[in-house]
Order: sequence, then structure tokens, then C-alpha cells
Amino acid sequence: MGTTPAALATFLALERLHLDETKTDLLINAGTCGGFQAMGAAIGDVYLTTAVANHDRRIPIPSFTEYGIGKISSLQVDNLSKELGAKKGICTTGNSLDAHELDHFHMNQNEASVKDMEAAAIAWSCELHKTPHFGLKVVTDIVDGDKPTQEEFMENLGTAAKSLQEALPIAIEFICGKGHDEL
Amino acid sequence: MGTTPAALATFLALERLHLDETKTDLLINAGTCGGFQAMGAAIGDVYLTTAVANHDRRIPIPSFTEYGIGKISSLQVDNLSKELGAKKGICTTGNSLDAHELDHFHMNQNEASVKDMEAAAIAWSCELHKTPHFGLKVVTDIVDGDKPTQEEFMENLGTAAKSLQEALPIAIEFICGKGHDEL
Repeated sequence: MGTTPAALATFLALERLHLDETKTDLLINAGTCGGFQAMGAAIGDVYLTTAVANHDRRIPIPSFTEYGIGKISSLQVDNLSKELGAKKGICTTGNSLDAHELDHFHMNQNEASVKDMEAAAIAWSCELHKTPHFGLKVVTDIVDGDKPTQEEFMENLGTAAKSLQEALPIAIEFICGKGHDEL
Repeated sequence: MGTTPAALATFLALERLHLDETKTDLLINAGTCGGFQAMGAAIGDVYLTTAVANHDRRIPIPSFTEYGIGKISSLQVDNLSKELGAKKGICTTGNSLDAHELDHFHMNQNEASVKDMEAAAIAWSCELHKTPHFGLKVVTDIVDGDKPTQEEFMENLGTAAKSLQEALPIAIEFICGKGHDEL
């Protein structure tokens, strides 16, 4: 949970595959997320990320601000989104499960549909290894709703995990044998 | 700058040294930091960390809260602190240069004397490699003062870097040839 272990685990996994001379074509970040109802997200929705960015790395020094946000494009997978009946949107990442006022401001700035605690870090490690990525994320809770995240998260985690377990094999089967431009 | 690159760089450096069968006795995290005047810190002070913790990883789920804070003890270096005329204290880490109200609450909870953007992540990677660490940090700005961090930071970075360049060789000379319990 959180960006440092996510970045490290991703980097080491890709490095290891590279050592074995296995070319990694694509990394899928499969997991759960919070959703923004203002952007049309509902609990149980499956989202495919179009990009990722950080909302809790505020560095108000010119040239560092953009680095802090660290926006990275995901592989665009429009055909997969049709196959899965999945929504598409930007995932904003932060190291806290909750979100205060300033977090909300920066999550809005990132134009996020969903929020998690790892995606931007995973994408950063993918970029270091020149490996395309996208996130396949299921919504457990509503970030801009009135329920405390931790309650809603625990309530819906089981259902979301089941939905993820269904979507992921379909996605893998659809992807295998296709070029990136067919996804 | 920030926890993910700091954790990754530390992990890979220690891993590489380990591959070369070089046992790493100690990692020194040398850098700059903000200081809390309420805890006695002033600009230009040299601090040795007694422990590190995160203030921007809020996870209000029992058993995850402590993981989020991720407090890790530094190697206690009382004799080195006398040698350098350095202060001692806890370093609190977050991915933003600025700090909002909730950050201040959690930095206080961490009983921090100084604040940075890397120490807790560096210590986490050290722990994964069972390598003791401490931070040698020079204060560039006052976190609980009234000047915007970024202005004070840019103003004092040069002086702090000079002070760090003086303290670090003295520290290394003092440490070499001594056991951990002599530091």
C-alpha cells in the first residue's frame, strides 16, 4: 500500500524480467480505487486509466511543480474498454486513504475520474523501464461523497475484488496476441 | 526529490553493494531539511536523526495507521553529535515542500525536530537490507515560521549546502574504524 513499495516492486519485477531477457510489452496495474461521482463514477465500476498523476507532491518551485505532479500517459486501450464495458479516465495518486481540502483541489486539477495510492508510482517505474502500462481499477468508494472512505472501502472491497477477478482474465485474453495499436 | 526515487535509489545502491559482496555497515542520509523552531531548530543547524516517520501517509484503518507512519529508529550517534556540535531529533517526511494544517498536526504527532521529503523512504529501504542508517541534515528553512518555505529554502540552500560539505567529511572521519556502539 502506498507509492514507495509500489514503485520498488514494479521496478524490481521489470528489472528481473529484463535480466531473464523477457521483453515486457505491457504492465497492467490491476487494483481498486476511489471514484469521483462528479466525473460519473459509481461503486463497482471498472475503469481503465488514460493517464496517472500525483496530488500530494506539492513543490511550489518553478520546474519542480510539474515533476511533483508527475503526469504519465497510460497506453490507450479503447477497444479493451468496449470489450469490458469499462469506463476510462485519469487516476490521481496519493499516499493517504482519506483526502483533505487541498488534496481535493489537486485531485480536481489532475481532472481525475478515480483515485488510488499507487498508480502514479507504478507508472513512474514502468517509464524507467520504457514499459507501457495501464490501470484496470474497480471503484470501492466515492471520494467526493459523504461517507468516510475507510468505511465505504471496507464495505465494498470484497465485491470490488470479485469484479476485478472477473474483468482481469477477460482483459488478458483480449490483449494476448494483439499489437498495442489494436487495444 | 521525494520518497519514491529516494527509496528506489537507496534500495538499488545497497543491493548493488551486496552483489559485490561488500557488507554495508551504515548508510548516511546527508541532505537539507526544514526545522521546527518550537523544537529549538534554527537555520544553519546541523541535525542528526534519532528516528524518521511519515506525516502524509494517513490510513485510518486499524493496523494500517502505524504502517503509514512507518516510524524507523536511526542508529544513535551521541558521540558523533558531540564531535560535530550537532543537535539530535526526529525527522518527519512528506512528499510536499509546503505543509497544510493536517500535515502540521501529523508532524507534531511525530514529535519532529526537522522535516524533509526523503528520510523515511531511505530508512525503509535500509531496513529492507538490514542496514543501519542515520540522517545528517542541515536546516534551510523554518517549517513553523511565517516565511513561505520555497522562498526561505532557495535563500538558504547555498549556505546549508556549504555547511553540509563541512560537516560530512568530519563525520566520515570520526565514524571510520569505530564500532556502532562507539558512535
